[in-house]
Amino acid sequence: MSLSFRESVARAVGVDHVRDDDASRAAYAADALGQAHLPDLVVIPATAGEIANVARLCTEHRVPLVVRGAGTGYTGGAVPTRGGVVLSLERMNRILEIDEVNLLAVVEPNVINADLQRAVERVGLFYPPDPASLESSSIGGNVAECAGGPRAFKYGTTKRYVLALEAVLPTGEIVRTGSKAVKNVVGYDLSQLLVGSEGTLAIITRVTLRLIPKPSVRATLAATFSDVRQAVDAVTGLIGRRVVPAAIELVDGESLRAVEAYLGRSVVPPGASAMVIVECDGGEAAVGAENRLVEEACRAAGAMEIRRSASEAEREDLWSVRRQLSLALRATGLLKINHDVVVPRGRIPQLLDAVTELARVYRLRVASFGHAGDGNIHVNLMVDKEDADELKRARAAERQLFERVVALEGSISGEHGIGFAKAPYLSIELSEEEIALMKRVKTAFDPAGILNPGKIFP
Amino acid sequence: MSLSFRESVARAVGVDHVRDDDASRAAYAADALGQAHLPDLVVIPATAGEIANVARLCTEHRVPLVVRGAGTGYTGGAVPTRGGVVLSLERMNRILEIDEVNLLAVVEPNVINADLQRAVERVGLFYPPDPASLESSSIGGNVAECAGGPRAFKYGTTKRYVLALEAVLPTGEIVRTGSKAVKNVVGYDLSQLLVGSEGTLAIITRVTLRLIPKPSVRATLAATFSDVRQAVDAVTGLIGRRVVPAAIELVDGESLRAVEAYLGRSVVPPGASAMVIVECDGGEAAVGAENRLVEEACRAAGAMEIRRSASEAEREDLWSVRRQLSLALRATGLLKINHDVVVPRGRIPQLLDAVTELARVYRLRVASFGHAGDGNIHVNLMVDKEDADELKRARAAERQLFERVVALEGSISGEHGIGFAKAPYLSIELSEEEIALMKRVKTAFDPAGILNPGKIFP
Repeated sequence: MSLSFRESVARAVGVDHVRDDDASRAAYAADALGQAHLPDLVVIPATAGEIANVARLCTEHRVPLVVRGAGTGYTGGAVPTRGGVVLSLERMNRILEIDEVNLLAVVEPNVINADLQRAVERVGLFYPPDPASLESSSIGGNVAECAGGPRAFKYGTTKRYVLALEAVLPTGEIVRTGSKAVKNVVGYDLSQLLVGSEGTLAIITRVTLRLIPKPSVRATLAATFSDVRQAVDAVTGLIGRRVVPAAIELVDGESLRAVEAYLGRSVVPPGASAMVIVECDGGEAAVGAENRLVEEACRAAGAMEIRRSASEAEREDLWSVRRQLSLALRATGLLKINHDVVVPRGRIPQLLDAVTELARVYRLRVASFGHAGDGNIHVNLMVDKEDADELKRARAAERQLFERVVALEGSISGEHGIGFAKAPYLSIELSEEEIALMKRVKTAFDPAGILNPGKIFP
Repeated sequence: MSLSFRESVARAVGVDHVRDDDASRAAYAADALGQAHLPDLVVIPATAGEIANVARLCTEHRVPLVVRGAGTGYTGGAVPTRGGVVLSLERMNRILEIDEVNLLAVVEPNVINADLQRAVERVGLFYPPDPASLESSSIGGNVAECAGGPRAFKYGTTKRYVLALEAVLPTGEIVRTGSKAVKNVVGYDLSQLLVGSEGTLAIITRVTLRLIPKPSVRATLAATFSDVRQAVDAVTGLIGRRVVPAAIELVDGESLRAVEAYLGRSVVPPGASAMVIVECDGGEAAVGAENRLVEEACRAAGAMEIRRSASEAEREDLWSVRRQLSLALRATGLLKINHDVVVPRGRIPQLLDAVTELARVYRLRVASFGHAGDGNIHVNLMVDKEDADELKRARAAERQLFERVVALEGSISGEHGIGFAKAPYLSIELSEEEIALMKRVKTAFDPAGILNPGKIFP
């Protein structure tokens, strides 16, 4: 990285917003799992125009450019694995507009998801995507990764809410995709192409999001089962009853035990080895009717215990088991190798069988939980990081897990993306021709290949 | 087109499925508005493998290749404006799978929309996209154009339902995008890129669609108003009450009069010059509650008359005015220049003002109707096709209409696409850089530029 490059970047964004001291470089090196590589330079722009200038310089000088939102990803999307510039969007964090007539919001990329949710809910509107990281992850990052969350079952993931984007191409052009109209079929849908592109195609500088009316009532139910198969039967049963809850979450026995160890108290009856949490929302009458069908499905599947929320506090309590999961698993001291595989929801039993078999064959502890309604199960291989053999067995198991998932017509990632962590496995799901096509699309956006190099593609 | 090319194509699909007689060429020349150009060759393949061979030959020989579904488009997407091969998908019309557990359907591209709807409704499921052409248009065409329809207000357009595609690249590779899982963030979302790409990127040979449970109840209400502004107020009022009907349709006075002339009877009270049709669906209690709010909004806006459906027959009757519109306008004998402009829904009053002004300035009759909930209004310039001056005035007016729509942060097409009919206007909405980017994406799929040349881009 030449001196003239650094000077030009400093001119583009102001010297105060360019850093290359060790502490700054370290602060912008890692993702949420601690996967890290030091950038050479941290650049903190305030406008799309500044970003355009930085991007143009990076293309000219062939310097890797990695965009960083809140750094809450799991697959290393924000990690500058080849050094170069990390472009942090932290100064672009304003909600620019909440339009109650047209039911939309316009935000800068680093608005935190939960802040947007609270702001729109204050005026009776609703932004459904709710990744577990919602209190810390940014909308720009959510768009770049196509974040999901429990409510995706009923409401879909981030992609369903992106109406329009402003983005900077790696060659420095500022483009706008989509419009404020809810329908738009003018040219290719580049908004949807950018959603989930993991910072490899363009730098998202403004997001226009569709909002919906806030559901007036929500009610949560948690059912425990002695066997995870019964829990899956309950999910199948409620979908068969044509109920569409906002969320259907599944927690397995290993995960429940980790939460109990973490909290130091029991959260389920003795002998329980699975829990299903179902939340219905909408108008009062509809929620009541749906809740009865959910309860019926849980009882028919052999639920040990069913708890219902009668208040917002009780609702929070029912959700707390689910919310504590990631912390509880990390508190085991084991390395949590987290995979967000997804299968057609009717094939969760086959997926869980495959996981059980892999755990046995490779002698691994596995904790599974997640979005059962979507068939999107977080399979966590719990590994002693000091045990080289166990780590090796885990790596072998994960490749087999991905192969099984693809054989079940699912996908190796439903939420977290590929980043660099899953790039070696891309060809399990995609053919050589499909990968070649995606690379040509990448080149159409980024001819010099400077934007987030080493991500997605093996 | 060389003899050897024709022979190779005949070998690829069988001689019985290649035609170049005048009658066949004429039968595959036009779209729904009669915009036509003769192809040199009509090819009717049965499998993706056959299509791959034909595509490869067209790329090798630089022969234009235009895919044709049911030919119901309005912007000439299926018209072979540069001759070459028309590839009709009519033999690929099977519903391959309706999966009640995973709520999805797998179909070949030429399944007719309404046939799929009926098939899935028989098992209690629902495929929402309902373009006016639903009895004749194909799912492949719906995907290629991203078809909408009245129910898009609540349920979204075709794109929301496409889970996975199989498609043939113009260079002959068969690719698969997405998966049967409802979430998938592996690589770029090429499914969504192909949706609405108007047959310019790839040939869609198989479609996997997400389904939802069929709403148990639906109820329709039609309100008439003496002024179209009141009708728009009613729409704004019901959205302000946070109701989410399945459909909110608006019909203006010119359109109502055309329907009355066509049917030879009055359909609205004397003095009525606008109608709003609102359909709510869902559970019984929810529909009742929503209906009351809709009625309240219509009354508050000054409705002259409100009619409610108490039976399915009455519901059909209320919808008949809307359904007769296109036929009624065509029966005037005038040329119907149909534009499906779209604005953020709160700006419909400004759009209607602009239309009124254009009609006055250019001395044109204009009939407007459409999907008010989406801000997607079909603005029909009604022109005497023998009157060269009127035609010229209409062309001037349409350019100004598009400019006004874009100034209102809307889009020049919400449903029909660009094809060749709107290609000259693309740059009103998209910048030079955005068009250049889209062309690079096109080249990533179609390096020789043989697939539907002359469409979308000016």
